[in-house]
Amino acid sequence: MATTKKARTHPPYELLYWPEIPGRGEFIRLVFEAARVSYKDPANEPDGPGAQVVVSLTSGADDKPPVFAPPALKVPGEGKDGAPLLLYQTPTILSYLGDKLGLAGQDEVDKTTVLSHALTALDLNNETHDTHHPIAVSKYYEDQKDEALKKATEFRENRIPKFFSFFERVLKANEAQGQGKFLVGSKLTYADTTLWQVLSGLKFAYPNELKAREKDYPLLFGSFYENVAETNGIKEYLASERRLPFSMGVFRHYPELDRS
Amino acid sequence: MATTKKARTHPPYELLYWPEIPGRGEFIRLVFEAARVSYKDPANEPDGPGAQVVVSLTSGADDKPPVFAPPALKVPGEGKDGAPLLLYQTPTILSYLGDKLGLAGQDEVDKTTVLSHALTALDLNNETHDTHHPIAVSKYYEDQKDEALKKATEFRENRIPKFFSFFERVLKANEAQGQGKFLVGSKLTYADTTLWQVLSGLKFAYPNELKAREKDYPLLFGSFYENVAETNGIKEYLASERRLPFSMGVFRHYPELDRS
Repeated sequence: MATTKKARTHPPYELLYWPEIPGRGEFIRLVFEAARVSYKDPANEPDGPGAQVVVSLTSGADDKPPVFAPPALKVPGEGKDGAPLLLYQTPTILSYLGDKLGLAGQDEVDKTTVLSHALTALDLNNETHDTHHPIAVSKYYEDQKDEALKKATEFRENRIPKFFSFFERVLKANEAQGQGKFLVGSKLTYADTTLWQVLSGLKFAYPNELKAREKDYPLLFGSFYENVAETNGIKEYLASERRLPFSMGVFRHYPELDRS
Repeated sequence: MATTKKARTHPPYELLYWPEIPGRGEFIRLVFEAARVSYKDPANEPDGPGAQVVVSLTSGADDKPPVFAPPALKVPGEGKDGAPLLLYQTPTILSYLGDKLGLAGQDEVDKTTVLSHALTALDLNNETHDTHHPIAVSKYYEDQKDEALKKATEFRENRIPKFFSFFERVLKANEAQGQGKFLVGSKLTYADTTLWQVLSGLKFAYPNELKAREKDYPLLFGSFYENVAETNGIKEYLASERRLPFSMGVFRHYPELDRS
């Protein structure tokens, strides 16, 4: 993205993730875009290292441990003795960046709530992934399709309403401050962008299910969803070529798993 | 537990969780016990409210949202305007308590690493749970046993070695400071107690698998595991009646799921 005046006061953040899919990297991208702070995303650069970014990350080096799984965030100069800081685990990266970029909540109490709601949205993200890979991440969808059909039915019938009704109640309880637009307080946080990304992915993966349910959650789909998409920074990002389309990552559209 | 001089300087922490199983509540208990700070655990008090603790928590009240799932931590006086602070999501509670009780790491860099390693250990915890409930948490194990057999095989053959070899390398890379006893730095953190609890649960749930694999991870099972169990506070706790036995919670021993 274009380097803004504000961006120049930040270290040259580098997101290390798989190329071509939004995946868990997208939660990190949305924070940068909402804050309008520049970042590198080398795996998605033309003629860049592509998937090699992740291979290097998860194999580590003799003197340092590998990262368990992507995404990771490299922050030059912010580690021990001026070394690069290498963060992994999406919630850790979100919490760190949220603090630095003003998207973590207004005070200590709000910060804990923002982290908890983001973790809950990420749990929904992970459960969505497991609907198409209920048995083994190392095997193809086609090899676990029978189990996926069962898992997706349970997910649609029981888990989606449990998560949606929880977040609807969170928005309702914060309505005086958040006007149905923010989960915590009266400003955008990374809990909002994280939940938004999961809802966006669910609309792609389970379009029939979502269409049938949206009306039951008037704050979530009436005010919250649209408001995040219209936020300065996010809006421009979503209209740009940087926004990667959903395809065969965490969120996949298999019509047979959706409501018929 | 006996109230110590140190404990009296802390607010009267209250852990809100299911009775009778260690579950995710145990990660929180271990932090209190390692810090030798007193806490209430009302669901496990004789003649206490039992499971009603969780029912109240997840139904919420009109003016406040419910907690998505237990465990939660109530900290009287630490919320907004002197109200009780109510935290949910295990990683949020661990990070908060770790900070307050000196078990979060020595500096900002270590704190992010401790959180990330704890999240990774909790991922292993969740994957273990899914081996006996791969399709639906709302159904009995017996109704998803065929799928559980497949999931457990994948878990034992691919996931366990992936997690164990990661943590072995973390211990190795920190050996100069941690002597194989600590994941980060030279002192116990909540990443250590969290990983320890998961390993302890795996020894219960998959005894044959663990016995066959332990020798491949000399730091993890040679120095780390025993050291955490021998830590002041933890050692007394494990010998006490407060330590709840594994039974039918996250970690369950179904011989048919274990290595034969």
